[in-house]
Amino acid sequence: MKKPLIGITIGDPSGIGPEISLKALRHEEVLDTCIPLLYGDEYVLRRTTDILGDGMKLHVLGSPKDAFNKGAVNIVSPGVLNEPWEYAKVQGTCGKAAFEYIGRAIGDALDGSLDAVVTGPINKEALHEGGIPYSGHTEIFADLTGTKDYAMLLTGGDIRVIHVSTHISLRKACDRVKKERVLTVIRLAEEATKGLGVAQPRIAVAGLNPHSGESGLFGDEEINEIIPAIEEAGREGIRVTGPVPPDTVFLKIAKGEFDIVVAMYHDQGHIPLKLTDFMGGVNITVGLPIIRTSVDHGTAFGKAGKGTADESSMLAAIRSAVSLAQNRKHRNGK
Amino acid sequence: MKKPLIGITIGDPSGIGPEISLKALRHEEVLDTCIPLLYGDEYVLRRTTDILGDGMKLHVLGSPKDAFNKGAVNIVSPGVLNEPWEYAKVQGTCGKAAFEYIGRAIGDALDGSLDAVVTGPINKEALHEGGIPYSGHTEIFADLTGTKDYAMLLTGGDIRVIHVSTHISLRKACDRVKKERVLTVIRLAEEATKGLGVAQPRIAVAGLNPHSGESGLFGDEEINEIIPAIEEAGREGIRVTGPVPPDTVFLKIAKGEFDIVVAMYHDQGHIPLKLTDFMGGVNITVGLPIIRTSVDHGTAFGKAGKGTADESSMLAAIRSAVSLAQNRKHRNGK
Repeated sequence: MKKPLIGITIGDPSGIGPEISLKALRHEEVLDTCIPLLYGDEYVLRRTTDILGDGMKLHVLGSPKDAFNKGAVNIVSPGVLNEPWEYAKVQGTCGKAAFEYIGRAIGDALDGSLDAVVTGPINKEALHEGGIPYSGHTEIFADLTGTKDYAMLLTGGDIRVIHVSTHISLRKACDRVKKERVLTVIRLAEEATKGLGVAQPRIAVAGLNPHSGESGLFGDEEINEIIPAIEEAGREGIRVTGPVPPDTVFLKIAKGEFDIVVAMYHDQGHIPLKLTDFMGGVNITVGLPIIRTSVDHGTAFGKAGKGTADESSMLAAIRSAVSLAQNRKHRNGK
Repeated sequence: MKKPLIGITIGDPSGIGPEISLKALRHEEVLDTCIPLLYGDEYVLRRTTDILGDGMKLHVLGSPKDAFNKGAVNIVSPGVLNEPWEYAKVQGTCGKAAFEYIGRAIGDALDGSLDAVVTGPINKEALHEGGIPYSGHTEIFADLTGTKDYAMLLTGGDIRVIHVSTHISLRKACDRVKKERVLTVIRLAEEATKGLGVAQPRIAVAGLNPHSGESGLFGDEEINEIIPAIEEAGREGIRVTGPVPPDTVFLKIAKGEFDIVVAMYHDQGHIPLKLTDFMGGVNITVGLPIIRTSVDHGTAFGKAGKGTADESSMLAAIRSAVSLAQNRKHRNGK
């Protein structure tokens, strides 16, 4: 099988994104399993290699198709940031540059030049200062690829979790627990987990309320929305169980009883994930026409520009992208 | 300091409660730090010692004051269950007996004959079949002691968490996030954590919404209710921080940055607690006029009557009760 071509956007230049992107490429595993390609300005990456001081060479490409694994780092350099910027500071120029890298990578993935996109961390305020009206990666990817039904999947440690909703208030999250949406996310969970290499995923659907509502005693969303969605998914042949009480379902997946949990809201999934594996987590946007994985941390300004950032999460994100790309190629018979 | 007298209710006879209560007393630590006293029928406990086969002797007391640590297990035997029952089955006779043990222990604690009550697991359905109209321990303790402002505190592993609300729907839990209640729970958190041996507790208050609402972007309970409660607690001299985003606050306490987290709803606190320490957790009802700690698991019917149940949680619950009792005595100058 041909090695997949993985585009890595380096994120906001003021954060740790460029550093962890370069550091990840030092790992043999990466060059053994894919052809990586950084989306970021040459000026930014030269400054980063100077900090790292390990003499990594940059190979500026005309097209993603020219990328290869031979002693240099492949880069697509849009040339939007060619002058000094400050580390660890919100700057419109950095936000604008980060957005440009993402846009280029999405375009290349959509036209088939890339097999997957892995994203480094960006800063929402810097985007806004740079005049970019998005609140984050997920919104950018959904919009630029014209996707309506998508969901955020996080993996880390022994836990894999996909969310019915994310960045909305807890009250609105309760409103979003509707049969159709829950069913959509169960289907996305199955598709994504297969892409991550699990042949027949065992899916646990969490309840919304404590103890899954105890048969309607406290909350009826399980009865009216979640159980009907689970039953319909079961009729479609999906291996799905639930509603499982929210406070035991993550222990069960940690023990290997399930392959993925469908969480009803942001913190239901994020609390256990961040507790078990804060540094090596991966964020995957599921439901897009292209593959997108990401580090699950932010720009970490406190560590930016020092050469001491931890690339575990970037490495894990590349690993997931490679798996998803190989499984997609395999299914498409390429 | 005199050893505190700790009453242990053995819970539903059909579950693992009698077994773990007896097993806990095998630990030298228990007899070294307190005088334990089981509330449970002689008939039930004889059957349990027969299963355990270790020849523990039972010392049936007339009054709690007759308890001592000399080669026998002190018991208060109300004599309500004197005939065979089945293990691992919901039975009204067992529910009624379990309730009788609790009622006796609460009475003895209220009149000062006991320093604390530790409860073994009960079964809600068995209570109902036995004609007992309560839904659980917490409600029984609140009602029989006439307490209005109380809260559930869980400890386990590196985590200690107290809840603004527990067994209500997530929608209603959002409604309960009011300044006065949050302030009450912050105060209860400080008092309880001091009782557990922390001189100057560092309290973290979690937000309700993802990212604590991002300054009102998704949800305004942080701005309108939680922050005003934190500010008022701070003015009272309490060491309190927040709102801390729900998905990072438990990692912070696990790393030792705080002594207790104030969680806004049941699963916000229960998910991380159960994930880190499922077997050795302790449940403490804070705000009662008496001290009450408990195992944090259920009757575990699947393991009942076999002699193989794990007493870790019971042991931890006794340890917490001893600490709370000693600190209360110390404060009262006894």
